[in-house]
Amino acid sequence: MARTGRRPGTGGTRERILAAARSDFGKGGYEGTTIRGIAAQAKVDPALVMHYFESKDGVFRAAVQFPVDPAEFIPRLVAPGLDGLGERLVRFFVETWDSPAGSPFLGLIRSVVGNEDAAAQLREFVTREVLGRLAHALELDQPQLRAALVASQLVGLAMLRYVVRVEPLASARADDVVAWLGPTLQRYLTDKRLTKVKKRSRGRR
Amino acid sequence: MARTGRRPGTGGTRERILAAARSDFGKGGYEGTTIRGIAAQAKVDPALVMHYFESKDGVFRAAVQFPVDPAEFIPRLVAPGLDGLGERLVRFFVETWDSPAGSPFLGLIRSVVGNEDAAAQLREFVTREVLGRLAHALELDQPQLRAALVASQLVGLAMLRYVVRVEPLASARADDVVAWLGPTLQRYLTDKRLTKVKKRSRGRR
Repeated sequence: MARTGRRPGTGGTRERILAAARSDFGKGGYEGTTIRGIAAQAKVDPALVMHYFESKDGVFRAAVQFPVDPAEFIPRLVAPGLDGLGERLVRFFVETWDSPAGSPFLGLIRSVVGNEDAAAQLREFVTREVLGRLAHALELDQPQLRAALVASQLVGLAMLRYVVRVEPLASARADDVVAWLGPTLQRYLTDKRLTKVKKRSRGRR
Repeated sequence: MARTGRRPGTGGTRERILAAARSDFGKGGYEGTTIRGIAAQAKVDPALVMHYFESKDGVFRAAVQFPVDPAEFIPRLVAPGLDGLGERLVRFFVETWDSPAGSPFLGLIRSVVGNEDAAAQLREFVTREVLGRLAHALELDQPQLRAALVASQLVGLAMLRYVVRVEPLASARADDVVAWLGPTLQRYLTDKRLTKVKKRSRGRR
C-alpha cells in the first residue's frame, strides 16, 4: 500500500521524509528511531509519515530499499504449516533475489559489510521484523536460534551465488538450490534434537 | 615455512615482492598471475620469490593476509575419513576465526564484498586452493558442488556471527556451533541423495 510513484507536489515531501529517516536510523539505529522523530526532522506531521509508509518498518524498508515486506511474506510462508517450510523459505529467497525486485539486495549486503552503522540498523530490523516474526510464528523451542541458523545459510547462499559467484551455485536453477538447502532449513526450523545440544555438549566436558 | 618476521636488509625486498604481487593479482586475478611476472615486476629473481613464499598460493596468502594454509589444513581435516568431517570443518573454521590468527578474515570479507576485483581474486584462490583440494580429497560425485555448499554455510555463519553479530549465534560457544552446523556440512559432503536432485526435479516438471 505504500506509495512508490511520484505525484505532482508530493514527491518533495516523500523524499524529505526519507532523507530524515535515513539520518535518524543512522544516528539512533532501528530500535531508537520513532515516526515522531522522523516527522520532526522532516518538519511534517507524523500522520503524513504514516500516510506514506504505514509504519516504522515501512519507512525503514523504503529508506534502505529493502525489497520485501516481512509482515506479508512470513505469515504466507508459515501458513501451510511446518511441513515443507524449509523448502518454501529457500524458494522465496532465491526467487525474490533472482527477480527484478531483488536487485537492491546486493547493495544492502555491501552496505552491511562495509559499514558498522548500516550493519547495526539492518541487524535490528532483521532481528525484530524478519527473525522475530518467524520466531513468533514457529511454536517451537529456541525460535531465535532457529531463525538465526536459517539466516546464516541464506546469507551464505547469497554471498556465494550472487556476490562472489562461485560455481556451480551461481548458475544453478532455483529448483536445485531448493532441493539442496531445503532440508538444512527444515532441520534448523523443526528438529527437536537441535536444541538439546547445549546440555549434551556440556555433559561431555 | 614462509618467513613472516623481518630480517635486517631483507624486509625491503619482501615488501617489494608483496607490493608487486598485489598489483599483479589485482590486474590478472589469481589464475592469470605467475611467480615469474611478480618477480619481473619487483625486479628480483623468481628464485627469491620462491625463497620467501614457496609457491604462488603462498605469495597470494601473504599478499591478502589469508591466515591459514589450505595445503596444510585440508589434508589434516580429511585424513581421519568422511565420518565426522562436517564437525571437524566447522570446528576448524570457528576456532581459527575466534583465535588471534583469524583477525584478517574480517578485512577479507569486507574487501570481497566491496570490490569486484578482490572478489574475483579470492574466488579463484578459494575455488582452486581450498574447494579444489577439498573436492579432490573427497572421493564422491559432484565434489565442486559439495564444497560450494559447505562454503555457503560457513560464509553465512561468518556473516551472522562475526560481521552482523546476530544473537544467539554471535555469543555461542564453538561446541554448540559445531553441533548445530556439523550435520549440515556432513550432508553436503557425503549424502549420496544430494546429487540425485537434478534428475528428480527435472522429472517432476
